[in-house]
Amino acid sequence: MDLSTSYPPELSPEQKQHLVATIKDWCIHHSLTVRPPPAFIQGVADPQGVLATNAPVTLFPSLFPRPCYESAVSVQTTYNQLYASITGNVEWLGGVIEELVDVDDFVSGLWKVHLAVKSEGYVQPLSLGLFRSDYMVYGSSGSFKEAQLKQVEFNTIAASFGGLSSLVSQLHTSLLSSPTGESIVYPSHPAFKGNLPPENSAVPTLAGGLAAAHKAYGPSKSSPNPLPLCILFIVQAGERNLFDQMELATCLTQSHNIPVFRVTSDEILELTSIPESNPARPIIYTPRYSPSTQFEATTIYLRALYGPQDYPDDTAWKARTHIERSAAIKCPTVLNQLSGCKKVQQILATETGGPEMDYLTRFLPDTEPALLEKIRATFAPQYDLAEGGRGRELALNPETAVYHVLKPQREGGGNNVYRDAIPPFLKSLPEKDWKGWILMELIQPPPAKNVALRSDGQVLSGDVIGELGMYGTILWADDGRVLHNKQGGWLMRTKAKDSDEGGVAAGFSSLDSILLV
Amino acid sequence: MDLSTSYPPELSPEQKQHLVATIKDWCIHHSLTVRPPPAFIQGVADPQGVLATNAPVTLFPSLFPRPCYESAVSVQTTYNQLYASITGNVEWLGGVIEELVDVDDFVSGLWKVHLAVKSEGYVQPLSLGLFRSDYMVYGSSGSFKEAQLKQVEFNTIAASFGGLSSLVSQLHTSLLSSPTGESIVYPSHPAFKGNLPPENSAVPTLAGGLAAAHKAYGPSKSSPNPLPLCILFIVQAGERNLFDQMELATCLTQSHNIPVFRVTSDEILELTSIPESNPARPIIYTPRYSPSTQFEATTIYLRALYGPQDYPDDTAWKARTHIERSAAIKCPTVLNQLSGCKKVQQILATETGGPEMDYLTRFLPDTEPALLEKIRATFAPQYDLAEGGRGRELALNPETAVYHVLKPQREGGGNNVYRDAIPPFLKSLPEKDWKGWILMELIQPPPAKNVALRSDGQVLSGDVIGELGMYGTILWADDGRVLHNKQGGWLMRTKAKDSDEGGVAAGFSSLDSILLV
Repeated sequence: MDLSTSYPPELSPEQKQHLVATIKDWCIHHSLTVRPPPAFIQGVADPQGVLATNAPVTLFPSLFPRPCYESAVSVQTTYNQLYASITGNVEWLGGVIEELVDVDDFVSGLWKVHLAVKSEGYVQPLSLGLFRSDYMVYGSSGSFKEAQLKQVEFNTIAASFGGLSSLVSQLHTSLLSSPTGESIVYPSHPAFKGNLPPENSAVPTLAGGLAAAHKAYGPSKSSPNPLPLCILFIVQAGERNLFDQMELATCLTQSHNIPVFRVTSDEILELTSIPESNPARPIIYTPRYSPSTQFEATTIYLRALYGPQDYPDDTAWKARTHIERSAAIKCPTVLNQLSGCKKVQQILATETGGPEMDYLTRFLPDTEPALLEKIRATFAPQYDLAEGGRGRELALNPETAVYHVLKPQREGGGNNVYRDAIPPFLKSLPEKDWKGWILMELIQPPPAKNVALRSDGQVLSGDVIGELGMYGTILWADDGRVLHNKQGGWLMRTKAKDSDEGGVAAGFSSLDSILLV
Repeated sequence: MDLSTSYPPELSPEQKQHLVATIKDWCIHHSLTVRPPPAFIQGVADPQGVLATNAPVTLFPSLFPRPCYESAVSVQTTYNQLYASITGNVEWLGGVIEELVDVDDFVSGLWKVHLAVKSEGYVQPLSLGLFRSDYMVYGSSGSFKEAQLKQVEFNTIAASFGGLSSLVSQLHTSLLSSPTGESIVYPSHPAFKGNLPPENSAVPTLAGGLAAAHKAYGPSKSSPNPLPLCILFIVQAGERNLFDQMELATCLTQSHNIPVFRVTSDEILELTSIPESNPARPIIYTPRYSPSTQFEATTIYLRALYGPQDYPDDTAWKARTHIERSAAIKCPTVLNQLSGCKKVQQILATETGGPEMDYLTRFLPDTEPALLEKIRATFAPQYDLAEGGRGRELALNPETAVYHVLKPQREGGGNNVYRDAIPPFLKSLPEKDWKGWILMELIQPPPAKNVALRSDGQVLSGDVIGELGMYGTILWADDGRVLHNKQGGWLMRTKAKDSDEGGVAAGFSSLDSILLV
């Protein structure tokens, strides 16, 4: 019998009421929280911005096929290495990017930052990646047993929810095992028997990557007097998801004893500086509230500046260039961000036939073929829209378009075109711009249900689709040397099946955890 | 130089903005939170009750005289013993209470519960107290050096804020020592030099008392089959201060592995039962959401049923009687709650002259005289309103009344009459009811200032008055045997000087911590 067909178990009204009340309180008590969305609480109702509410979470953990989870774990450090290698091969990556610069202003802007810093010369040989590889389970048979893991995207910048995801694992673990090792808040179900979510070490893993970079930076480069060192988090003004970020900052402060400061992207040029007289280009942070204090940033972690919306004017591009030319270790560099373009993912995934075009072997020459095969097996069918190619054919034919999604180069969702909207959308674009888009087959997961508690307290249930993200971190030098390469922690996001976008912060979907079956 | 005159240091606008923003986020991230007060967020704006906000907190810890703090620590276990002894001397306590029953319906109601259970016979010899002794510093000279510790009241029921108080200590400690062991968020001040709030062990101390009772209860008394054991927290419906309570529950669950359930006072009779056939009278809890599960409560911790507002009808009195007659260890028993009457405090404090009337020696026969003197030194001048007595004279004379407060038997504030309101208030009462009230000299603390962040985000600064609560817990048997007697943790509450009431949950005042000077 397939456990998933009867999952989750039906809640009585009393059970549902209690489960929701318990989760609401647990979330606040454990900081599984967000600032409330404006559609729920308008700014005028909370002018000082003190309110918080639970992050959107599922009432039940979702079932996930164990072999798929284990595959995702087993390939992560190789994926880390793959994207480090791509980032390091500037010639190859540049060739891909230069194809896009005339159709994608944002990619073009990033590439110009790289070219500007390259012409001056980079001063920091180390790069840090905090990655998240996102997967869905493909199971056309409807059976978990035959399910396959397929990659949706590989995030090389601002991969979020490591903090809150760990907390959802704790929430579901607590619900599954309280009060006496067995749950009384859930109805019984065979999937619960002796089963808890796998360990979720996203916070120590991601913070560990940042701490490794901080340590590798070495002593202060400031002269004549060395400065105390710190890590800077570059964040968006008015970030509602700050408590997710604070989990990492708290871990860095408490477990690694590293000072962390939050700087919004529009404060970068005001609060940080690179002394012109110092060829090592340390970047100095001066808190606005303590102007006599200075810190030197070893590592700059971007939780902003990842998409066009963060670059409203030229100042933001100046700020990004300012960071890029500094001695700080960037998480990520501009090149590492660009390696996350959908075009790169599509080139890797496309069957090319000739061994000279086998990019996996080229970028991972020391990796066992069996592991490369495991990576390759995660690639979903995807295509460019080149003239006369398979992608263009599938995208323009309404009968085949309905099984696909059209993606621009951005990460993070919100810009995709789905199914029958694809042919008219493409026809509305000049054909020369089509090369900025990638067509990807929609992954059809086995049917599943869940119940979600939204941030405004509403409880919704129905058919859902889940997406598993696997976190990894890698610190490498531009000569190819790898100083730190770890896998650890995961994110389950579950969205209503009729919603085509997956951004949790936008409220379309919920944070979840998994039970392996 | 007196450090306090320049305290707290002046904040620049940038410092204030940063300090407030940091505290707002820290509070949510560490669950130093309350559900928002209705004056801030009306129920209609948050129909599901998901929102939370920071508890009202001070931006700075308050300065507190070290000798006064050390006195409060040193007398706590003796105070625990004192109130256990008073509770155990039913003849003496009954004499005090019977004086009040015709003028105080609430005291009368509690006394009737005791009489009813006494006539049936108590089945549980053990009592648990989680106490908080509240003090102010008396310093008419305005100098900290000559300050004296004076007791405001001794709380024997529902002493709150142990959880949130510990968090405020952590908040201020973090602000004083970050990012590198020294603060950059506060302006420098001599009081900060190498100084942090004293350790605040309120949570492990209070949870440790509950755990000691749970253990002392012994095995299940249910028959024919023993039941799993638990602790019940009796709480108010719609409690805004639940995150304070959850700190204790989480400690019991995580550190002591004891299941804890929350039951609102109006659910007691529905969700708990005492099998008529079992003379041991175990009290059985059946969760509404899991009707096939039963737990036997070893310990019942009251965070409700402490004042008249919790007894809207006879059902609430039935519920209190139901608890009182059960085999569970009550925290507190009705008698222990009654020992907290202001009348008891006043009798203890009143100089009587004769050794046969020296109640301290009588209730603490094995205590060293020096320690008794320390206890006695904490008594503030207080009086009954007996005809021809000093209290009546001071209360009716407008010139002396202004230095006093008139208190009924209740704990928890909100019912007091202050200063020049006293003479007209008394004249509005029938003289026969005056014996229900106690006149207490207002304690005049040295001048102090602070800045508070309210739950709605407003920041207020000005002259303040602080009140230090010291937590203690004692588990004793009705034969006088003491099984557990601990002091640990404290609460600082700071209110605007022009506010005469101190209830933090009501928003009149803020949670604070202390720096000893």
